[in-house]
Amino acid sequence: MRHNYLDNTPMEKARSEYLSFLSASEYTYKTEKIPSQSASGRVLAEAVYASICSPHYNASAMDGIAVKAKDTYGASESRPVILAAEQYEVVDTGDPVPDGYDSVVMVEDVTELGDGRVSILSAHHPWQNIRQVGEDICMGDMIAPSFTEITPSLCGAFLAGGVLEVKVIKKPVVGIIPTGDEIVSPVAAPGKGEIIEFNSAIFSSMLRQWGAEAKTYDIVKDKKELLRAALEKAVNECDAVLVLAGSSAGRDDYTSSVIASIGQVVFHGIAVKPGKPAVLGAVGNVPVVGLPGYPVSAIVIMDEIVKATVSLWYREKGKKEATVRAVLGKRVVSSLKYQEYIRVSLGKVGDTLAAVPLGRGAGVITSFTKADGILVVPQNSEGYEAGQQVEIKLLKDLSQIENSLIVTGSHDPLIDELSDMLKRKDSSSYITSSHVGSMGAISALKNSQAHLGCIHLLDTETGEYNESYVKKYFPEGGVRLVKGVGRVQGLMVKKGNPLGIKAFADIVKGRYVNRQIGSGTRILCDYLLNKNGIDKAEVDGYRNEEFTHTAVAAIIAAGNADCGLGIYSAAKMYDLDFIEICVEEYDVLISEKAYGTSQVQAFLDVMKSGEFKERLMQMGGYTLG
Amino acid sequence: MRHNYLDNTPMEKARSEYLSFLSASEYTYKTEKIPSQSASGRVLAEAVYASICSPHYNASAMDGIAVKAKDTYGASESRPVILAAEQYEVVDTGDPVPDGYDSVVMVEDVTELGDGRVSILSAHHPWQNIRQVGEDICMGDMIAPSFTEITPSLCGAFLAGGVLEVKVIKKPVVGIIPTGDEIVSPVAAPGKGEIIEFNSAIFSSMLRQWGAEAKTYDIVKDKKELLRAALEKAVNECDAVLVLAGSSAGRDDYTSSVIASIGQVVFHGIAVKPGKPAVLGAVGNVPVVGLPGYPVSAIVIMDEIVKATVSLWYREKGKKEATVRAVLGKRVVSSLKYQEYIRVSLGKVGDTLAAVPLGRGAGVITSFTKADGILVVPQNSEGYEAGQQVEIKLLKDLSQIENSLIVTGSHDPLIDELSDMLKRKDSSSYITSSHVGSMGAISALKNSQAHLGCIHLLDTETGEYNESYVKKYFPEGGVRLVKGVGRVQGLMVKKGNPLGIKAFADIVKGRYVNRQIGSGTRILCDYLLNKNGIDKAEVDGYRNEEFTHTAVAAIIAAGNADCGLGIYSAAKMYDLDFIEICVEEYDVLISEKAYGTSQVQAFLDVMKSGEFKERLMQMGGYTLG
Repeated sequence: MRHNYLDNTPMEKARSEYLSFLSASEYTYKTEKIPSQSASGRVLAEAVYASICSPHYNASAMDGIAVKAKDTYGASESRPVILAAEQYEVVDTGDPVPDGYDSVVMVEDVTELGDGRVSILSAHHPWQNIRQVGEDICMGDMIAPSFTEITPSLCGAFLAGGVLEVKVIKKPVVGIIPTGDEIVSPVAAPGKGEIIEFNSAIFSSMLRQWGAEAKTYDIVKDKKELLRAALEKAVNECDAVLVLAGSSAGRDDYTSSVIASIGQVVFHGIAVKPGKPAVLGAVGNVPVVGLPGYPVSAIVIMDEIVKATVSLWYREKGKKEATVRAVLGKRVVSSLKYQEYIRVSLGKVGDTLAAVPLGRGAGVITSFTKADGILVVPQNSEGYEAGQQVEIKLLKDLSQIENSLIVTGSHDPLIDELSDMLKRKDSSSYITSSHVGSMGAISALKNSQAHLGCIHLLDTETGEYNESYVKKYFPEGGVRLVKGVGRVQGLMVKKGNPLGIKAFADIVKGRYVNRQIGSGTRILCDYLLNKNGIDKAEVDGYRNEEFTHTAVAAIIAAGNADCGLGIYSAAKMYDLDFIEICVEEYDVLISEKAYGTSQVQAFLDVMKSGEFKERLMQMGGYTLG
Repeated sequence: MRHNYLDNTPMEKARSEYLSFLSASEYTYKTEKIPSQSASGRVLAEAVYASICSPHYNASAMDGIAVKAKDTYGASESRPVILAAEQYEVVDTGDPVPDGYDSVVMVEDVTELGDGRVSILSAHHPWQNIRQVGEDICMGDMIAPSFTEITPSLCGAFLAGGVLEVKVIKKPVVGIIPTGDEIVSPVAAPGKGEIIEFNSAIFSSMLRQWGAEAKTYDIVKDKKELLRAALEKAVNECDAVLVLAGSSAGRDDYTSSVIASIGQVVFHGIAVKPGKPAVLGAVGNVPVVGLPGYPVSAIVIMDEIVKATVSLWYREKGKKEATVRAVLGKRVVSSLKYQEYIRVSLGKVGDTLAAVPLGRGAGVITSFTKADGILVVPQNSEGYEAGQQVEIKLLKDLSQIENSLIVTGSHDPLIDELSDMLKRKDSSSYITSSHVGSMGAISALKNSQAHLGCIHLLDTETGEYNESYVKKYFPEGGVRLVKGVGRVQGLMVKKGNPLGIKAFADIVKGRYVNRQIGSGTRILCDYLLNKNGIDKAEVDGYRNEEFTHTAVAAIIAAGNADCGLGIYSAAKMYDLDFIEICVEEYDVLISEKAYGTSQVQAFLDVMKSGEFKERLMQMGGYTLG
């Protein structure tokens, strides 16, 4: 069981020195010729000059008659000029103006007098109503310089200028080699110990967004010679290569040694979290990057290193990323050893844009799917305090973020159902939902970090729900409590209830799985313990915390615990037995400021809808007041 | 020669009523199933729920040994716990934790003692260093709601959740039918009267950007029955159809009558400029839009009507377009009859973002390729004054606009060569150049609408260039004059010089083509007229104005005029004879504020470079000081 340590090179240094290394090793773009029609979105490899004028002849700009301007001089309403048949020619828009004529009278201004004669009521100057040669584009003019990203209208201008083909930058082909003994190609039901290989799908999509082509190779087992063979093939076929996993220094981590054996390793280990175990190297002039196995770690290296490598191919230097200033919702503690990338969700409540940090686990891809932006904490910073102004790298369109409804508080699958219904009505509506528990909802609303919070807070004295908490935490008002649904809480236990759990008191019979502090269900648990005179210490697994009802159900279904408190719909989903304990009131707390907005009103409308009731009935375990 | 008049329906009314009409006629989206790997960028037709947990088994998060947490209790640096071979199992990251074990000790914290025994220096709690079932995704959780645009990380989340296929909105297939007797498919050398059909290339590229698929049909001649046949075919094969040209009410404009004959015309004629002659209709539930023949008019209808039709397919309602506030650089006069779309270039000088209106000709596609944004003048507004704050619809990325160097003033192809060289160095650098003449440059710099202006202004008293103008117009300074190049001005005449023009005085022998007021070449012309004692009135075509040297050359080459003043390189391009008149000083005037910026410095560097000299020599007619 040998173990090596990695370098800890600062990100800035690693990136800039790696890019200079690549330039020095003649990593550069290739070109190809493509038809102008289909060139939109591509990048020009050379300047495009018009080879003809547009229009390339004198074209009538109107339906009318071509005349000699001289013949019309002096014409007026009172003294019209009469032209004989041989003094004009009928032309349509786009027709060439016949030789000898230098002006066009539009059809509306021409009166036919019979036997071919026409009368004209106004004088016309030379070239009036005629699109002269080169009005739009002149032969020899530069239509666009090198490295221009081609727009739809440029496609048109190229063709108008007689340029049927353009030379563009060839998209770099980036090879992706997934590795690992435990990795399998996507399957519906992977076996125990089989991890679905989904990283290549993420990275190839990112590469396409950046203007590269992705070429994914078969999964390579953790054998040094297999990896070497795969890499040798890939560097011959691609302009850059990514090796997924095996980039660390563990027993089966061969990426860096294999790159070194046929090429050069420039950096191994970057002072970034997540993402530290990355390898930056090259074989000849082909960049080879070893990415960490955990998706979130790898995405950081993709964004910081691989994206820059693609930009270098396109000669983009000064390109800036979109950022925004936001108020940090939660304290962020960061290590002095690393530059940290913290995924945040962004939301605008009133005039303040708030950034709320999401889960930090490197294995948690959903922390990225939910993220609106990234907070980068510099290497020698200990982090930021809640309420501080911070700069956020945007992952989504700001207008989308500013329009989205921020729902927080107690987890319940019905929130997802509501957002689905909202998007089906208007796909440009957005809901950001986070599970911070009922008490989290209260504080989020107090600090205007959410428009709307879902709560089910039991008043352990009165046995009533929610009202007393609202009175206590919002003495000055500022919020509205809207009745939601009743939902059944109870104990989830393995199918068949092997331990014969009948009531809450029986949880001591087995291993319990709890919910996080601040969640309504945790408060319910403590209330019941106290009511049954059970001490926390007697509960095996009291400290084993999960954040959602489905997570608790999954833990029990997996046999990691024997019982836990949760809602009926979660138990049903996981085919667990369920011992009902109470029906609680799951209500919606709304910030007064936000109540009138179209987003909140739309939310309340779907909550009242018949379709929502149907969905609840299907999920089961809900009652409607 | 019959002529009908069109309606003049306000844009807002036309769009909203047309969209409601389409919804009522059951124009709606179709769906298809595609692999999750390649789903990025598509839009979900239904919510996606995880079908398995991720991880779907308890996976070791470390290389190390799987143990029973209990066995490690009490372990510390001072009192390590010794485990026998049968009390642990070696696991790698991702391995399943063997049954009976509930904790993993990382390899760094394990010391081998021989004969299989190991010592551990710290207590571990249950599930430490283990990724429990569902840590990332729980079976049954909604991964994304309906109508979500799929991101790369969502592709990964779908696969991690065991979802290999997703149901997405099928891209609408939009048919494009180009029409017109004068229209030909793109060719390098079209004949007289042949207009290259480039609109379909523009529109299909726009449609692709909006998430639609474009299907372009063969060009249809101006025959009613041919158009009907083509339209009948297209509405059977497509989800929407565009008919290009023939949308007005002229002799050969059949679009509206043909739509009416097999479907329904909802609107014909919209109060918008350019774009008025548009037809909005449908055949069954297939929208059919008749677009005007002029590209710019058609682009306006594409943006305002067709884009909204595609959005309706995707159920996007509230989607906003990016806009920005800018200071209007020039007065804009607009008709009360129409909502006007004015293409503007945007540029940031100091802290002010200035919008400068571009050419307004509906046939001028280059006015769109150069545009950074659109100024929409409402129907019942007479326009805006220079200096007024206006809202601009962005066509480009704001950061790109803010970083671009604004070069204005006298036209010379060398400006295009300079911007090409700049982009070859760094493709993320941008130059916006406009031809407003030397005097235009002076006023642009005075009103800080440009960083840099190119001038060749002859002092008719002293016969010197530029300095005296700078002294006169910038008495308080604020600008720097940088020596540029010397360039040869002269008379361009048809090859072989048929009229035997030997000196400037001879321009009266033929038809002259002039440059616009404010251009240095116009000032030179007036100076020479006066010097030669020629009266403007004697010059046939004095009022025939063009904006660039190449335009003047093109006009002479086409035979629309016999002579004109211009630079040698333009004459050479068009193979014209050239009678040299003088060598003028073409210099660069730079705003003091901008002088230090990296953009201006990069510009000056390129101007000093050897490559630039080479390019000038190839163009010919330049001297370098």
